[in-house]
Amino acid sequence: MALIVQKFGGTSVGDPERIAHVAERVIRTAQAGHQVAVVVSAMGGETDRLVELARAVGGDRPNPREYDVLLSTGEQKTIALLAMAIHRRGHAVQSFTGTQLNLRTDTAHTRARIESVDDTSLRTVLDSGAIAVIAGFQGVDTDGNITTLGRGGSDTTAIAIAAALDADECEIYTDVDGVFTTDPKLVENARKLDVISFEEMIEMASLGAKVLQIRAVRFAMRYGIPLHVRSSFHTGPGTRVVVQEEVMERLVVSGVTYNRNEAKIRVSGVRDQPGVVVRLFSPISEDGIVVDMIIQNFAHDGSTDVTFTVPRGDYDRAMELTRAAGDAVGARAVEGDVGIAKVSIVGLGMKDHAAVATRMFQVLAEEGVNIQMISTSEIKISVVIEEGFAERAVKALHLAFVEAGASAPVPED
Amino acid sequence: MALIVQKFGGTSVGDPERIAHVAERVIRTAQAGHQVAVVVSAMGGETDRLVELARAVGGDRPNPREYDVLLSTGEQKTIALLAMAIHRRGHAVQSFTGTQLNLRTDTAHTRARIESVDDTSLRTVLDSGAIAVIAGFQGVDTDGNITTLGRGGSDTTAIAIAAALDADECEIYTDVDGVFTTDPKLVENARKLDVISFEEMIEMASLGAKVLQIRAVRFAMRYGIPLHVRSSFHTGPGTRVVVQEEVMERLVVSGVTYNRNEAKIRVSGVRDQPGVVVRLFSPISEDGIVVDMIIQNFAHDGSTDVTFTVPRGDYDRAMELTRAAGDAVGARAVEGDVGIAKVSIVGLGMKDHAAVATRMFQVLAEEGVNIQMISTSEIKISVVIEEGFAERAVKALHLAFVEAGASAPVPED
Repeated sequence: MALIVQKFGGTSVGDPERIAHVAERVIRTAQAGHQVAVVVSAMGGETDRLVELARAVGGDRPNPREYDVLLSTGEQKTIALLAMAIHRRGHAVQSFTGTQLNLRTDTAHTRARIESVDDTSLRTVLDSGAIAVIAGFQGVDTDGNITTLGRGGSDTTAIAIAAALDADECEIYTDVDGVFTTDPKLVENARKLDVISFEEMIEMASLGAKVLQIRAVRFAMRYGIPLHVRSSFHTGPGTRVVVQEEVMERLVVSGVTYNRNEAKIRVSGVRDQPGVVVRLFSPISEDGIVVDMIIQNFAHDGSTDVTFTVPRGDYDRAMELTRAAGDAVGARAVEGDVGIAKVSIVGLGMKDHAAVATRMFQVLAEEGVNIQMISTSEIKISVVIEEGFAERAVKALHLAFVEAGASAPVPED
Repeated sequence: MALIVQKFGGTSVGDPERIAHVAERVIRTAQAGHQVAVVVSAMGGETDRLVELARAVGGDRPNPREYDVLLSTGEQKTIALLAMAIHRRGHAVQSFTGTQLNLRTDTAHTRARIESVDDTSLRTVLDSGAIAVIAGFQGVDTDGNITTLGRGGSDTTAIAIAAALDADECEIYTDVDGVFTTDPKLVENARKLDVISFEEMIEMASLGAKVLQIRAVRFAMRYGIPLHVRSSFHTGPGTRVVVQEEVMERLVVSGVTYNRNEAKIRVSGVRDQPGVVVRLFSPISEDGIVVDMIIQNFAHDGSTDVTFTVPRGDYDRAMELTRAAGDAVGARAVEGDVGIAKVSIVGLGMKDHAAVATRMFQVLAEEGVNIQMISTSEIKISVVIEEGFAERAVKALHLAFVEAGASAPVPED
């Protein structure tokens, strides 16, 4: 008997028929002798509808506490419906809201972080042979306020539950077959990966591959929870996300990703002195805005330029804060640009950065794509380019690195 | 400074524009120097949509615990939206779900009864000068399960809150101007009552006048909470519901009501022995089904017939239980009929029952309406008739008793 956490996204529970389908799938797993905890998202489109209502009623910046009260109803609807569907098919079941599960988070409304999961009642339900159905994306703070983890947070919930229960596997069901070498909608020859390392998956997720949320993968890696990304529409295997050591064949580049959801802010004429950059970024990070790439040029005449990217949704706020901070540190100008895309190549086998980077820049140059920013990590190289070139860049890089099929030998260590 | 509880129904909060309107109205009350606790229903149509989803997924008898998890999202949406709207207008506000308020109920899912209201956090919010926005219709049991009070239960919530806070008034905002002598949609000459006694209001509510829920009026009467039923669309006075002593002019008949939401069950050939009726009704009442009228005929040859009415929504279940109970007590037959309507006249001044009843039966006979069952109380006479005759009966009775305008002198006691 294994303990399996299954997570179904919004598309998988999008209507009564699909909910029935999920119920049957979950019951089959239980009937195979496993304990099953199911984590669900809001029905497809529901969160968008709620966000629209919030805007209509609360304006551009609705009260965050109440925003979470509103958004959490989406997942609450789904747990009730899925539990009904399971109950109707004769299997014992109990649903849990974040509050009922006592899934504790900090108080950062709309982007809360999980602090602890109280597994007492959950274990009682599972040990009784019932299926537990858990609302993803939501938690509760110490004062009983409802919090949400930010969009896509249901993955994080599933992995937190898997970690708390020391589950054998966490299956993430999606509307795609698994993790692909790049967006199949964009590149016809994109292919499904059978296995990928946590490290690569984290880069892929952070770079815009929407199959898994980065925080979720980080969580899973930290707690050593094996993930299985698979399709809710058929029973075939998907992509397993495992620790690096278990990945046998290492491609130089496992995937090509792109992300149009960032915006660029440039602060020019900043005095090149210790502490100035801190004063620039403190207000943004205190506001909870995640800064992604940061580029600082060499200083000329004691002043320098700092360019960074933020999520596009936080752009207006970030510009506001940066303008104030820029004035405070005596910067010459603060400019922004939302018309950018980040395109990245990711691979565990990317040992020789210089060679891979050179080839990447060459491919982009041949396509006439101008590179605005560059950032690298152990296993990825990202470039920021003009948004209109994103598709062309992804296609060219996928052809050059993935379809060419260059494999790196598995290191002997 | 007064403490006022305001309750807004589904139509009043049916869309973003109306929610904005309610926010402004609530703020005006607060700005007049009052403490305000607002209780809201689900947005108009929302509960019906959720019920439809529950049926589609959970079948005819969806799991009651999960049904409550589902339905409670309706009010949760509204509190979040109204709180956002109030916050946006610069007034401090905090929303409360039933769980957050710790509004304790028994465990009877879908028709729970309020056991206690923990006013600690509510008072803290009100004393800070903020407006409290409370989800109607929902509570929580001792195990943390979400419960609902049954449809229309938001009125009950409002009055329970008013009682717990010892409020000065409980205003019930509706889409009508107040309590009418009969349904204005049916009878053109129906008129608004300025004042009505709790007793009359209870009869009116129990008999199908949909302005207030009967349990809510009972609650208000028990705790002496003055109600004010008024329109959310204008600021004019509505109908005040007060203790009997405060009603000056007593009409013989204050109102004519009708109710198409009942069904009739007849058990014939029941042995006329002590304990038999108990065995017939025990299973139904244990199932939580409310039996309204009960008629037992005189016994012939040691056997008798028992006829009673139940809410139409409980009809199938009641028939099932009654068939089993009928078999157990050796009844000859159990028959049911959903095609009925209950028509009633209500009035504090109804001193001479015989005269009023005679006139009522005469009016109905003149309209060709056959009476199937009769039931009377201190201040009302109800008849069950064939459903198709309901409208005709109401019109004729309103003309004869209300439009004729017969007033009874106020008793001197």
